[in-house]
Amino acid sequence: MTLRNTTEFFAPVSGFDLPRFAGIPTFMRLPHVPFDHARFAEVEIGLIGAPWDGGTTNRPGPRHGPRQLRDLSTMIRAMNGTTWVAPFELANCADLGDVAPNPADLMDSLARMEAFYDRVVAAGVLPLTGGGDHLCSLPILRAVAKQRPVGMIQFDSHTDLNDIYFGTSKYNHGTPFRRAVEEGLIDPKRYCLIGIRGTAYGREDWDFAAANGIRIIPIAEFHARGPEDVMAEAREIVGQGDTYITYDIDFVDPTFAPGTGTPEVGGPNSWQALQVARLLKGVNIVGADLVEVSPPFDASGGTAWLGISIMFEMLCVMAERVAALRG
Amino acid sequence: MTLRNTTEFFAPVSGFDLPRFAGIPTFMRLPHVPFDHARFAEVEIGLIGAPWDGGTTNRPGPRHGPRQLRDLSTMIRAMNGTTWVAPFELANCADLGDVAPNPADLMDSLARMEAFYDRVVAAGVLPLTGGGDHLCSLPILRAVAKQRPVGMIQFDSHTDLNDIYFGTSKYNHGTPFRRAVEEGLIDPKRYCLIGIRGTAYGREDWDFAAANGIRIIPIAEFHARGPEDVMAEAREIVGQGDTYITYDIDFVDPTFAPGTGTPEVGGPNSWQALQVARLLKGVNIVGADLVEVSPPFDASGGTAWLGISIMFEMLCVMAERVAALRG
Amino acid sequence: MTLRNTTEFFAPVSGFDLPRFAGIPTFMRLPHVPFDHARFAEVEIGLIGAPWDGGTTNRPGPRHGPRQLRDLSTMIRAMNGTTWVAPFELANCADLGDVAPNPADLMDSLARMEAFYDRVVAAGVLPLTGGGDHLCSLPILRAVAKQRPVGMIQFDSHTDLNDIYFGTSKYNHGTPFRRAVEEGLIDPKRYCLIGIRGTAYGREDWDFAAANGIRIIPIAEFHARGPEDVMAEAREIVGQGDTYITYDIDFVDPTFAPGTGTPEVGGPNSWQALQVARLLKGVNIVGADLVEVSPPFDASGGTAWLGISIMFEMLCVMAERVAALRG
Amino acid sequence: MTLRNTTEFFAPVSGFDLPRFAGIPTFMRLPHVPFDHARFAEVEIGLIGAPWDGGTTNRPGPRHGPRQLRDLSTMIRAMNGTTWVAPFELANCADLGDVAPNPADLMDSLARMEAFYDRVVAAGVLPLTGGGDHLCSLPILRAVAKQRPVGMIQFDSHTDLNDIYFGTSKYNHGTPFRRAVEEGLIDPKRYCLIGIRGTAYGREDWDFAAANGIRIIPIAEFHARGPEDVMAEAREIVGQGDTYITYDIDFVDPTFAPGTGTPEVGGPNSWQALQVARLLKGVNIVGADLVEVSPPFDASGGTAWLGISIMFEMLCVMAERVAALRG
Amino acid sequence: MTLRNTTEFFAPVSGFDLPRFAGIPTFMRLPHVPFDHARFAEVEIGLIGAPWDGGTTNRPGPRHGPRQLRDLSTMIRAMNGTTWVAPFELANCADLGDVAPNPADLMDSLARMEAFYDRVVAAGVLPLTGGGDHLCSLPILRAVAKQRPVGMIQFDSHTDLNDIYFGTSKYNHGTPFRRAVEEGLIDPKRYCLIGIRGTAYGREDWDFAAANGIRIIPIAEFHARGPEDVMAEAREIVGQGDTYITYDIDFVDPTFAPGTGTPEVGGPNSWQALQVARLLKGVNIVGADLVEVSPPFDASGGTAWLGISIMFEMLCVMAERVAALRG
Amino acid sequence: MTLRNTTEFFAPVSGFDLPRFAGIPTFMRLPHVPFDHARFAEVEIGLIGAPWDGGTTNRPGPRHGPRQLRDLSTMIRAMNGTTWVAPFELANCADLGDVAPNPADLMDSLARMEAFYDRVVAAGVLPLTGGGDHLCSLPILRAVAKQRPVGMIQFDSHTDLNDIYFGTSKYNHGTPFRRAVEEGLIDPKRYCLIGIRGTAYGREDWDFAAANGIRIIPIAEFHARGPEDVMAEAREIVGQGDTYITYDIDFVDPTFAPGTGTPEVGGPNSWQALQVARLLKGVNIVGADLVEVSPPFDASGGTAWLGISIMFEMLCVMAERVAALRG
Repeated sequence: MTLRNTTEFFAPVSGFDLPRFAGIPTFMRLPHVPFDHARFAEVEIGLIGAPWDGGTTNRPGPRHGPRQLRDLSTMIRAMNGTTWVAPFELANCADLGDVAPNPADLMDSLARMEAFYDRVVAAGVLPLTGGGDHLCSLPILRAVAKQRPVGMIQFDSHTDLNDIYFGTSKYNHGTPFRRAVEEGLIDPKRYCLIGIRGTAYGREDWDFAAANGIRIIPIAEFHARGPEDVMAEAREIVGQGDTYITYDIDFVDPTFAPGTGTPEVGGPNSWQALQVARLLKGVNIVGADLVEVSPPFDASGGTAWLGISIMFEMLCVMAERVAALRG
Repeated sequence: MTLRNTTEFFAPVSGFDLPRFAGIPTFMRLPHVPFDHARFAEVEIGLIGAPWDGGTTNRPGPRHGPRQLRDLSTMIRAMNGTTWVAPFELANCADLGDVAPNPADLMDSLARMEAFYDRVVAAGVLPLTGGGDHLCSLPILRAVAKQRPVGMIQFDSHTDLNDIYFGTSKYNHGTPFRRAVEEGLIDPKRYCLIGIRGTAYGREDWDFAAANGIRIIPIAEFHARGPEDVMAEAREIVGQGDTYITYDIDFVDPTFAPGTGTPEVGGPNSWQALQVARLLKGVNIVGADLVEVSPPFDASGGTAWLGISIMFEMLCVMAERVAALRG
Repeated sequence: MTLRNTTEFFAPVSGFDLPRFAGIPTFMRLPHVPFDHARFAEVEIGLIGAPWDGGTTNRPGPRHGPRQLRDLSTMIRAMNGTTWVAPFELANCADLGDVAPNPADLMDSLARMEAFYDRVVAAGVLPLTGGGDHLCSLPILRAVAKQRPVGMIQFDSHTDLNDIYFGTSKYNHGTPFRRAVEEGLIDPKRYCLIGIRGTAYGREDWDFAAANGIRIIPIAEFHARGPEDVMAEAREIVGQGDTYITYDIDFVDPTFAPGTGTPEVGGPNSWQALQVARLLKGVNIVGADLVEVSPPFDASGGTAWLGISIMFEMLCVMAERVAALRG
Repeated sequence: MTLRNTTEFFAPVSGFDLPRFAGIPTFMRLPHVPFDHARFAEVEIGLIGAPWDGGTTNRPGPRHGPRQLRDLSTMIRAMNGTTWVAPFELANCADLGDVAPNPADLMDSLARMEAFYDRVVAAGVLPLTGGGDHLCSLPILRAVAKQRPVGMIQFDSHTDLNDIYFGTSKYNHGTPFRRAVEEGLIDPKRYCLIGIRGTAYGREDWDFAAANGIRIIPIAEFHARGPEDVMAEAREIVGQGDTYITYDIDFVDPTFAPGTGTPEVGGPNSWQALQVARLLKGVNIVGADLVEVSPPFDASGGTAWLGISIMFEMLCVMAERVAALRG
Repeated sequence: MTLRNTTEFFAPVSGFDLPRFAGIPTFMRLPHVPFDHARFAEVEIGLIGAPWDGGTTNRPGPRHGPRQLRDLSTMIRAMNGTTWVAPFELANCADLGDVAPNPADLMDSLARMEAFYDRVVAAGVLPLTGGGDHLCSLPILRAVAKQRPVGMIQFDSHTDLNDIYFGTSKYNHGTPFRRAVEEGLIDPKRYCLIGIRGTAYGREDWDFAAANGIRIIPIAEFHARGPEDVMAEAREIVGQGDTYITYDIDFVDPTFAPGTGTPEVGGPNSWQALQVARLLKGVNIVGADLVEVSPPFDASGGTAWLGISIMFEMLCVMAERVAALRG
Repeated sequence: MTLRNTTEFFAPVSGFDLPRFAGIPTFMRLPHVPFDHARFAEVEIGLIGAPWDGGTTNRPGPRHGPRQLRDLSTMIRAMNGTTWVAPFELANCADLGDVAPNPADLMDSLARMEAFYDRVVAAGVLPLTGGGDHLCSLPILRAVAKQRPVGMIQFDSHTDLNDIYFGTSKYNHGTPFRRAVEEGLIDPKRYCLIGIRGTAYGREDWDFAAANGIRIIPIAEFHARGPEDVMAEAREIVGQGDTYITYDIDFVDPTFAPGTGTPEVGGPNSWQALQVARLLKGVNIVGADLVEVSPPFDASGGTAWLGISIMFEMLCVMAERVAALRG
C-alpha cells in the first residue's frame, strides 16, 4: 500500500493530486477539523496555531508565525525520509485551526488560550502548536498540566526563567517557565533546558534554576558533548512520566533561523536542530510547541521551513507514541 | 444592522472575532466551498485560485500567486470605503479552492482548467479568479464563452495577441487572446485593451487587432485622457452584453506591482489601478480574473495586496450586478 | 553667513565635517539634550522618539520606528531646498531622546508617556515626535491639551475613531482620537481628517464623526481637488487656535511607504506627501507627530527616509512659527 | 520586413531565438565590439559601461551599475512601443564594453576614462554610457567637448555644482559640472538643470548657477508646469548646437528608483521619467549618460530596469538623429 | 611566471586589469567561444549555461541560474587557494554560451539540448554546465553516454529516481535518472547518490535503486561518516571508467544555498560542499553539472557564489585530468 | 550586587530601564565620551567607529559598518553568558564616537585616522574599533605601534599581504599588512594569520609571508585541527608581548556573515567565530578591530549582530586584562 492511493479522511492531500504550492494551506495539508466538526472526536493529534506575541519584549512578529508555518508546511510529504516513520498512517492528525487571542489585552489572551487548550485536552487530543511567542506555552501548560505537573524539555537560547520585566511585567516571553514552576505546572526535577547562551542581564534566572533542581545545559556543553549524549541525559531527566516539549526556534543558530525576535549567535545547525527532535523518541509527549518564528524578520520563509520540519520530526515521535499506546 | 453581528454562512470571519493575521487563509476569509460541499448550489460568486504558470516565457512565478493573494486577502474588511458597497451582503460569495493544474503538462493543464470552469459556469456561479499567468484566461474563456462570444476589457501592458513563440509555441502567456479570438470566444468588436506599452518585437499583434476591429488604448493615450474618459469608451465598446474582465497586474506600473514576470515601466499608479476597476460599474460581468502576480519577485506581498484590492473592487461591481439581476 | 561655519551649540553636525553616514545618529544630527542637560531650558523645538507599538492590532513593528528615523535623518541637510527655510537658524532644536515605554504593560506605557510630555510642555518646548504606533498620540494630546482642547489635522488612511476592539480593548491604534474627543482633548469642530480610504468594518466611526462635527476628507475627494484646495479648507477648519498635527505614514500610498502595519492602496504620492506638510504654513502648531513607520516591513529605509523628510517639512513650519512669535 | 528575420551583424539577438533571460548579457543583446574588433569602424552609437564610483561621498555602489543595467537590458525588445522607433534599424549600435577604472586611484581613473572616450569620439562614435557615479560625466565631457563647449541638459535632484567637499576634495560626484564649466567644457548659457530638490548645505551652488547664466528648474516648477512645457524650454535653451545629456537616476522619485546613493523624495514618476527622455527629440545629442544606479540598494533590479528603459528612450532619439544626419 | 602577465587567449581577464565587478560577465571571465568561433577546436573544457526549468514541479526559477552564476563567477581568481591548482594553465577553458531552450515546449527543449551537447561531445570538449533544473542532466547524459553507459556520482537531497508525476509526466526534474537508467545512459552498478534526505512521497524510488544496484548514501550516513570516507566509497563505486558528475545545489543545506526550488533542511555546510567536489580528484570525469540554482529565491547571489565555487572545484579536478591525459 | 542597580557613569543603559530597541544607539549602550568630554581621562577601553571604505577594491559598503554595529549592539546585555565575564564592571568602557574620514581623499583619510588614534593611545585608552574596511587597520597600527612593533593575530579569509593593485595602488584593503610589516609596525615573527582561503591571484603574498617568517594557517588546517589547537599555537606565536588583534568578518563563512564585500565560501561557523575570540584569553591585547561589515549586503543586520557579538567577546578578554593589570 502506498500513501498516494489513500482515501482516508485524515490523509494529507498528495502533491501528485494537487501541486504542493497549490491549495488553501492547512498544516501539512491535513483536513481542517475545528471543535464543531463532525469528526473532531476522532482526532488524536491536533496541529494548532497560536498567533499571538503579546508577551514579546524586544522585536515583535511571532503573531504571524502560524500563517507562515502553514504556508511552508505544504512542502511536507507523507513519510520521514530519515526514520521512515509515516505519521499520518500511525495517528489521526488534523489542523484544529488557530486559537483566537486578543491582540490588545494580555490577560484576556492568556484566558482565551487556556480555555481553548482545555477543550483540546479534554477531548484527549495531543496538541502540537505552532506559535506565537514563548508566553503562549504558559496557557498551554495550564491546560496540559491541569491534573499534575509535567516534565519538560526546553530547547532555547534563553532560560525564560526571569521574574519581572520593566518593574511591573510578570507575564512576558522571558518569564513563562518561572510562572509555570511557581504554579506547579512543571516538576522542576524533571525539567531540562538545552542550548542556553548569549549575553545575560545577570544570574538570577540561573540561581532560580539551581535552587529548584532544574538542569540547564548551556550551549558550550552542547557543542562539546554532541546531540546524542545531551539528549540521552534529557530523556533520563524526564523519564517515563508525562512530558511537554517546548522548542523555541531561537535555540537554532540565527543564521539558520533568522526569523525570530531575540537571536543569539553560536547555536546548533539545522541538522542538529532536527536531531534533537528525533532523539525525543521514547519520551511520553503529552504536547509540544514550536514558538518564536517571526515572519517579518524572514520573509523568505527559510525559518518557517526549518520550523515546520522540526514540528514534523516531533509529530513523528508523537504519532509513534500514539500508535504504541493504541497497541 | 452591522456586519459584525452577522451569523450567516457566507459572511467572512470578522477581524474582531479573529485577528486579521490569524486563521487559515481563504479568499477574503470567506467559507471554503468546494464542488462537493452541501451549500455549493447557493454560491453566486466563486473566488478561485489558478496556480499555474506553464505559459510563462520569461520570468516564472505566478503559480504561487493564489497562495499569496489569499494570504493578503485576510486584510480585506466587509465594506468598500470609497463606494460603500458591501459585497458580501449583496451576493453569496465563497472560496471554491484552487483548480489543480499539471505543472509538467501544458495541454493537460488547459484541459483540466476548462473542465473545472465548465462546472463553475454550469452551476451558475460567476468566477472571479486569482492567477496564475495570463494563459489561464484562455481555458476560463472556453468555459465562459461556450455558448457565444463575450465582450472583453483587458487591462494589460502587453497585447497578448501574438501568434507563435520560439517557432512552435501556440499556447503561452503572450498568445491567449489571439487564440480566443480565433476560437470565437471573444467578439473582437466588443474587445478593448487598455494600458499597452513597453518595447515590442514588432507590430504583428497590433496589425491583428486592427484587422479584427479590436480597440487598443495605449498607455500614452491613457495618461493623456485619464481613467474616467477611457473607461467610458471601454464601457461603450462592450455595451450591455456578457463581458469578461481580464486584469493583468502588469497593467500597473511595476513600482506599484513589482511582483510580476514581465514588467513594463511607465504605467498607472495604484489609485488609477483601483479607479479603472470601479469604473466597470454597470458592465455585465460574467467573469473576471487578476493574473500574473508573481510572489518570488515580491516577497513583501505589496503586489498581492494591490492585486487583491483590485479583485475586491471587481467583486463589488459583480455583487451589485448579481443583486440587481436578482431584483 | 553660511551654515557651514556655524559654531552654535544647536547647529546640526555638518556633512562636510563628518560624512552623513558617520557618527552616532541623533535626529537630524542635532545635539542630544535630555531633561537633565544644562541647556535644556533653551530648547524651543524638541525632537522625540516614541518607541512603542503596544496599541497595534494588526502587524507590529513601529516600536522600531524612532531608531530607523534617526538613522535616515542624518541625510537631512541644513536648508529646505524648496522653501529655503533654514529651521535650525530659526529655532533652537534638539533631540530629547526617547520616551521609555513599558513594552509589556499598555496602561503603564500610556502613563509614562503622558508624564514625559508633561515635562516637555511644561518647559515650553514644542514636541515633534517620531513614533511609534498611533496610540502614542493619545498621551501626547493629554499633555499638549491639558489646559484646553486643541484643533487637529490628521493625515491618515484610517479614521482611528473606532470605539472598542475584540470586545474589551478601548485603547489601541484604531481608537486614540475617539478617546481624545471623549476626553475633551480635541475640539471636534476644529478637527479635520484627510486621506481616509480602504475597506471598512462598518460606518460607526464615520457616524461618530458626523455626529460630532468632525470633517473627513476621503481619498477620492483628495485626488479630485488636489492638495492646495484641500489644505486651504483644513487651515480654515483649525483656524488660528492651538493645533496639533498627527501624520500617520499610512496616509501615503504604501508603494511609497511600505514600512507600515496596515497599508491601504491608492494613496497620495511622495510629492503630495510633502506638499500637505508644507501647506501647514501659517497653522499655529503646538505639537506634531509622524507615526506608524514600521522598519521590519521596510528594511531598506525608504519609508523612514520619506517619514523623516515629512518631519523636516513640519519642523520648518514650526520653526517659522517659533521665530515669528519670538518677534 | 520584420526585425525577427534580420541577419545583420548589428541586430540584437531576438527573444524568439534565445529567451530574454538567457545568454551572456551585453547591452540590449547587441554585439560586443571592443576597439580592436574588425567592425568597430562601422559603429555609430556605442553603449559603454563606466563601472566606477570613486567620487561618491555618501552611499557607494554605482560601480556595480553597468553589470545590472546590462542584465536587465536583455528585456529590451526591438521597437519602441510608444514612438515606434526601431533604433537598431536606424543606426549601427554596439556594446563597446566597460572602461577600466582604477578603484583605488581617483585621478588615474579620470585619466583612464578620458583616454577611453577620446578613442570613442575620435572614431565618430556617439557614446551612450551607463554609470557609474556622476563624476564619470566629467572625463566623458572632456572627450566630447575637446574641441568646443557643448550645451547640456541635466536631469537630477542635485545640482552637482558644488565646489569643494571635506576641505580638500575638488573631484567628487557633487562637483563635476562646476569643474566642467570652469574647464570650458559646458557653455553655461546652453545649460539647463531639471528636477533639483531635497535639502541643501547652502545656496552656493545656486549662486554659481545664477552668476553664470545657468538655468535651474526646481522640482516644484517641474510638477507645476509638467514635462512637455519644461522640456520645450530646455530644448530652446540648448538650441541646435552640440548637446550632451546627463541623466542622474536620482532625478526620479526614489520609490521608483530606490537603487541610488543619495535619494531625494518627491520626484517625477516613471512615466514622466520616460517622457522627458522622449521629449529630447530634435536635440542634437553628441553623447548621453545614465548614472548613479546603485545595485546594492536595489537587488530586485527595478531601478536598473527603469534606468535601461530611459537609456533606450535616449537611444531612440540618438538613432533618429544619426539616421537623419546620414540622410 | 605569474598569471597576471599571461597574454594567452584562453586566460581569464585579470582582476588587476579590469576590476572583478566590471566587464561583460562570461563564466570565470573566460573568452566567449561559440561553436562558430575560429578557436573552438582548441577548447578542452567548455563552460555552458542551460537556462531552462521546464521540468520543475514545485517552485520555478533555475532558468535564471546561468545568468547569476556568470555574474558571480567574475569573483573567481586564477588559482585554487586550497589545492593550488591553476586550472586555466592546465587546460584550454572557454565559455561556450547558453544552449537555447524552448520555454514553452518541454520535448522540443530536450531535443535542442541533446543536439547542442552532441556538438560539444563530438568536438572532444568536456562540458561543465551551470543549470537549469535537474531535468537538464538528461539530454546532457544522452550526448555524453551516446556510445556507452557512464558511471555517475550525484550530490543531491532527492533521488530524482521517481517514475511519473501528476499521472502523465515522465520527464520532469524528479525523474531524470530513472529515465537515464532505463535508457541505458547510466550504469546502475557504477552509480552513487549522496546526501538524500527530506520527507518522501513513498519508497518507490528507493526500491528502484535497490533493485538496480544503485547505491544511496543518505544524509544521516553522510554526517556520521564524514566527507572523506563517503567520497572514498564513491570513487570506488565509479572506478576508473567514464563518469559523469551531477551536483544539485539542494545537496547543500538550504541556509547555505537558499536559492533553490525544493530545499530540504539538515544538509552539508559550505566547507563540506567544497570538500566533496575536491575529493573527486582522480575520477575520470567526462562531464559535470551544477543545477537548480534559482536566483528568484536568492537575489543576494550567495547561492550562486557557492554554486560557482563548487563549479570551480570541479573544474580544477577536470583540468588536472585533461592535463594528465595530455601527458 | 546586580548590574541592574548600578548607577555608575560607565555602566550601559539597562534593558529594563529602556527597552533594548529604544534610545540613541551608542556602542553597547555605553556613554558617549568624545575627546573633549570631562570624563575622557577615566576611559580604559574606547569603542570607536571607523566609517571608511576608501581602500575597497571590490564591493564597497563598510563605511556604513559602524552605524549598523552600534544599532545591533544595543541587544548586548551586561554579562557574557558563556564565560560569565562582566566587562563593564571590570573596566571603564565608553563610546568615543567615530573618527572622521575624508571619503574623497585616501591619503588624507589615513592621516586623519592616525591622528585620531594617536590621541587615543596617548591617553592610555585601549581602542576597540568597528570598521570600516581593512585598510583602516593600517593607521591604527601606526598609532598603536608607534614605539615598537606589535605582535598580531589576524582572522581573515585573505592575507591582505599583497603589494600593488591596478598598477599604482599601494594602499588598499588588500595591502595593509604588507605595508605594516614594511613600516616595522608588526613583528613578522609574532604574526599569525588564521582562516585564509578562496581563489588566489598568485602566490606572491604567501611568498612574502614565508620570507618574513609570518605564519599562515589556511582554512583546511583550521577545519582539521579545530579552534582550540589552532588558537593555542596562535597564543604561543604572539607570546606575552603587546599584540594587536584584527578580525575581518570575512573570516567567517559568508552564510553566517553575508554582509561583506569579498566573501569566500567554506569558512568557520558562528560558534567557531566566537570561540576563537574567547580563546584570545591571556593575550596582551593593546588594541583590536572588527572590520569589513558591509550593511548594504546584509540589511537584515545578521552580519552586524555576529560582528558585535565577536567584539563583545574581544572586549571581555580586554577588560579582564585591564582589570588584571590594574591589580
